[in-house]
Amino acid sequence: MSLESCVDVLVIGAGPAGLMCANALAMAGVDVRVIEQRPTKLTVGQADGIQSRTIESYGLAERLIREGNRVHMSAFYGPNEHGEIECKKCERLVTPLAACFPFIVTLHQGAIESILLDSMSQHGVKMEQPVAPSAIEVSEDIEELASMSSYPVKITLERLDAVGDTIKTENVRAKFVIGTDGAHSWVRRALDITMDGEHTYSIWGVIDVKPDTDLPDIRKLTKIQSTNGTCMVIPREDDKVRLYIQLSGGDVFDPSTGRVDKSRMSPGKLLEVARKMFRPFELRTTEFEWWSIYTIGQRITSSYSVRERVFIAGDACHTHSPKAGQGMNASINDSHNLAWKLAQVLRGWANPSLLKTYELERRQFAQDLITFDKEYQVLFSGKPRTAENQDGLSHKHFFRASEKFGGFIAGVSVQYAPSTLVNAKYQGCASNLVIGQRMLPQIFVRAAAALPVEIQDMLPADVRFKVLVFTGILTDTQIANVNSLAVQLRKPSSFLQKYAPHGNVSSIFDIITIVVGRKEKASFLDVPLLFRPHWSKVLLDDTDVTRRRGGCGYETFGIDPAAITFVIVRPDGYVGMVAPSTALDNTFLYIDFCQGHGFLYMPR
Amino acid sequence: MSLESCVDVLVIGAGPAGLMCANALAMAGVDVRVIEQRPTKLTVGQADGIQSRTIESYGLAERLIREGNRVHMSAFYGPNEHGEIECKKCERLVTPLAACFPFIVTLHQGAIESILLDSMSQHGVKMEQPVAPSAIEVSEDIEELASMSSYPVKITLERLDAVGDTIKTENVRAKFVIGTDGAHSWVRRALDITMDGEHTYSIWGVIDVKPDTDLPDIRKLTKIQSTNGTCMVIPREDDKVRLYIQLSGGDVFDPSTGRVDKSRMSPGKLLEVARKMFRPFELRTTEFEWWSIYTIGQRITSSYSVRERVFIAGDACHTHSPKAGQGMNASINDSHNLAWKLAQVLRGWANPSLLKTYELERRQFAQDLITFDKEYQVLFSGKPRTAENQDGLSHKHFFRASEKFGGFIAGVSVQYAPSTLVNAKYQGCASNLVIGQRMLPQIFVRAAAALPVEIQDMLPADVRFKVLVFTGILTDTQIANVNSLAVQLRKPSSFLQKYAPHGNVSSIFDIITIVVGRKEKASFLDVPLLFRPHWSKVLLDDTDVTRRRGGCGYETFGIDPAAITFVIVRPDGYVGMVAPSTALDNTFLYIDFCQGHGFLYMPR
Repeated sequence: MSLESCVDVLVIGAGPAGLMCANALAMAGVDVRVIEQRPTKLTVGQADGIQSRTIESYGLAERLIREGNRVHMSAFYGPNEHGEIECKKCERLVTPLAACFPFIVTLHQGAIESILLDSMSQHGVKMEQPVAPSAIEVSEDIEELASMSSYPVKITLERLDAVGDTIKTENVRAKFVIGTDGAHSWVRRALDITMDGEHTYSIWGVIDVKPDTDLPDIRKLTKIQSTNGTCMVIPREDDKVRLYIQLSGGDVFDPSTGRVDKSRMSPGKLLEVARKMFRPFELRTTEFEWWSIYTIGQRITSSYSVRERVFIAGDACHTHSPKAGQGMNASINDSHNLAWKLAQVLRGWANPSLLKTYELERRQFAQDLITFDKEYQVLFSGKPRTAENQDGLSHKHFFRASEKFGGFIAGVSVQYAPSTLVNAKYQGCASNLVIGQRMLPQIFVRAAAALPVEIQDMLPADVRFKVLVFTGILTDTQIANVNSLAVQLRKPSSFLQKYAPHGNVSSIFDIITIVVGRKEKASFLDVPLLFRPHWSKVLLDDTDVTRRRGGCGYETFGIDPAAITFVIVRPDGYVGMVAPSTALDNTFLYIDFCQGHGFLYMPR
Repeated sequence: MSLESCVDVLVIGAGPAGLMCANALAMAGVDVRVIEQRPTKLTVGQADGIQSRTIESYGLAERLIREGNRVHMSAFYGPNEHGEIECKKCERLVTPLAACFPFIVTLHQGAIESILLDSMSQHGVKMEQPVAPSAIEVSEDIEELASMSSYPVKITLERLDAVGDTIKTENVRAKFVIGTDGAHSWVRRALDITMDGEHTYSIWGVIDVKPDTDLPDIRKLTKIQSTNGTCMVIPREDDKVRLYIQLSGGDVFDPSTGRVDKSRMSPGKLLEVARKMFRPFELRTTEFEWWSIYTIGQRITSSYSVRERVFIAGDACHTHSPKAGQGMNASINDSHNLAWKLAQVLRGWANPSLLKTYELERRQFAQDLITFDKEYQVLFSGKPRTAENQDGLSHKHFFRASEKFGGFIAGVSVQYAPSTLVNAKYQGCASNLVIGQRMLPQIFVRAAAALPVEIQDMLPADVRFKVLVFTGILTDTQIANVNSLAVQLRKPSSFLQKYAPHGNVSSIFDIITIVVGRKEKASFLDVPLLFRPHWSKVLLDDTDVTRRRGGCGYETFGIDPAAITFVIVRPDGYVGMVAPSTALDNTFLYIDFCQGHGFLYMPR
């Protein structure tokens, strides 16, 4: 006896990548299920750093920031002439220009998963556990694969806690399957996808503690490079900190197997190693919450999908060192990239070939991540510069690396390659909004109410493309131009109207208009109705009433206030295209590619 | 048959004042009940403006801001030479310096009540409704009144929905009773307390609508002074606005009774009157959510309490016009003032005579409010200045009034009179922190983590006095002085130790230390342990990592960075005393008055 069922999307593995994907799809109204083989929720340990910007796109940042710890500064400690560490430099952690939040949030993975689970459950989707997949098969039938009404993936699920007469096995037919089942992914192995890359011999311990110490910078992100090895301090919620502690092979290798043997290490021994690195500061802590040891592999999957019907994401695709806090973010952002594309395809707004851009964009990112990780790893594993070792690494190397990789670590300078989704033809029209990168943060004020708003907060991940119309300064001539543009865009053949179901433009595009003007003078009624679907959608490039927030947005973005400029932001918050209003045909073409002919799929 | 029960505090009337009081007491762990005779929750209409700062002291501002509408700017429209209105001026609504939030939040009263109800219920207290009081009696026995273990107030409650055999009547004995049962207060009348003052003949209509209009400033707080009368526009949540519309007596007076007759008016007629005031702008709205008409009384209760065992608060104490959005705030702040005093007395921390300061402080406020209201009312009811009427009021009168009363309207310049709680002897030590007024907002950064924090957020209404230690610049001499101060304050006879139960200073005082220093250099370990009960309690007067927030706090407060200065903030966020560290004896005396001898009560 077994159950039979159908689902549009089945997510296998409910870590951060899986829950992010399931939540995003649930919010988009997609028929989705998510299974997890662990029987209980994660309560301690694992990943703990997150870029709040991504999760913010789903309205969850408020809770993340409230529950987590914010890290604003980093400190670097190196050895002095007596071989004891001293603070060499303190500096801000995140470059404010590019990041809306000038900090990172640290919180244990279980709490982050809870935030996603709660949101998902508000949209009617609950995680099913403990449930494991036991078989998977993807159709090879071309017609079946091409049709969005078919269910070409067959999966067998086992309910691990089934007892007695309960039905244990379920045969599921799915339109899409997402494997977010971690570094040892069952989905990946079941489909014979290999991991390419190398395994390093760098060994690290990690331990979460409530520290009792006189190290002054214990609440900053602190890198300690001592003559006894390297340690990294990550301050966390509830006065906790995580310590990453460099180990030598001798401590943990089992010579008979050549493998790391966790039983050769203990929390007490780990803290003993850290204590030597802290000198002359004391580390009196003996209690711990969670600990582990690991070696670092730097590998990427050979394929992100099987026939664009099964996808893998997160740790299933890439492994690297955890110390730049990239693991969970890379995983979450795989899902962030994939979810809106799946939703668009399932809604019939885009052709299934849109899904090919998932691997295109995320593989490049994973490769960049590993390149970065290798360079960064050398810094962490290298010997410090001392009087005897003039070739060693000094804090300057670290800070140079922070400068070089800062934007990458913060996730704001991730660059997607040119494609139908990333059209850089008119980059010059908004020279600082790099096409293929995340939209820059900027505060504008609402014309109608003078309320300051962060533009990022107006770009939620709601599956819609955002069309930002920068009207420039509304001189009489410019008003005439804006009005005539509105007339053109009202034509049934215009890109705004062509794909709008029942003529409802707002259901598929979100139009936001940004005018150069003063809050005391400008009116939201100055722009034509098409460009103000709601009073809240007309913004001014001005400061707020305190004169401390906002202003100079055109300058920051590199947009000419004498022109009319479109900025098209993808549903995931990346800049897809910028264009002058005179290049309406090309803008049309871009949208056409994204929503129409390029990915043409018309539901019957 | 009737029930018999005892309670420490019984709150009668669950409007904003009653719920604020009950929630504050519930959060403080006080045994409290709150009853309401209305059978159902308020869903529309009534009061709608709030100063978020007060509610923030209880951790509720986040939700208030999320659910409400923020108003940042005001606009003024007056008649032009054709007798049609035009915009005369737009300006910010709230002076940024004094207000932490440079806006007001508008939200209907029912939603605000829900926020308080939800918070209260998290602390185990639920509103009981429909329940009405039918008898009240306060003991006159001096010994009984003096003892905090007695229950000198007897109240009879009737359960209005009791049917069949259910017990309908309950006899409650209470330590304290709070009457927050509105302008027609049953508690006030039952205790023969009169209202003194006058009734005006100014008549107004009020209506909540989703406006369909081309008035450009419909999302600002807009005052329209037309030749057809005065109208005020209050933008609200969900795209709604509230209109206050001046009526002439002829429209609504019943000549046979001389009273206002609501049946002579209707929503349609109200909107018709408003439409004339809007010209040349259109007001096409016909639907409405709630409406009412009212005349304005300006009256104050003759007494705020009976033997400091029954208190009245909110509309039960004072009535005035609603147009400056003061009603709900005045009411909420009565409760804010009273609740911590009750909690301190019930905990045995303060003598019951502390409760006398409730009337001292809140009666003066109510009088100031009515003085303000009279001046403001003239502006609203007067004729506009036109070519024919050169003596009329122009927009300049309005803006002068806004300047004059801005701080008062925003609630930040409310001034409490000198008392044991308000000691202005050393005002010069922090010249801009006006003693007896609300603590000024200011952003500092945490020394340990460089996290920017608003000082107001570190001053929650948690019944504790806050002791702010401004150490100045930590030169070697200053460090020695700070250390020696800590030694003095560690003595059992010091004001910090003397009242601390079991030597636990933090349970009764919250110590916050503010150092002049740079986040890259200063360490929280630089101050003695007494002044850093937790790493988060040491702040720096510096900007945050973006360099856009914080800095110049000493200058803003008027504190000398070469001195050591105490600022004592009352549990309700008002500055109680400032003092130089050299005046330790006087600081002791202040605390002694507040917590000790002055209000001495020692629990047995």
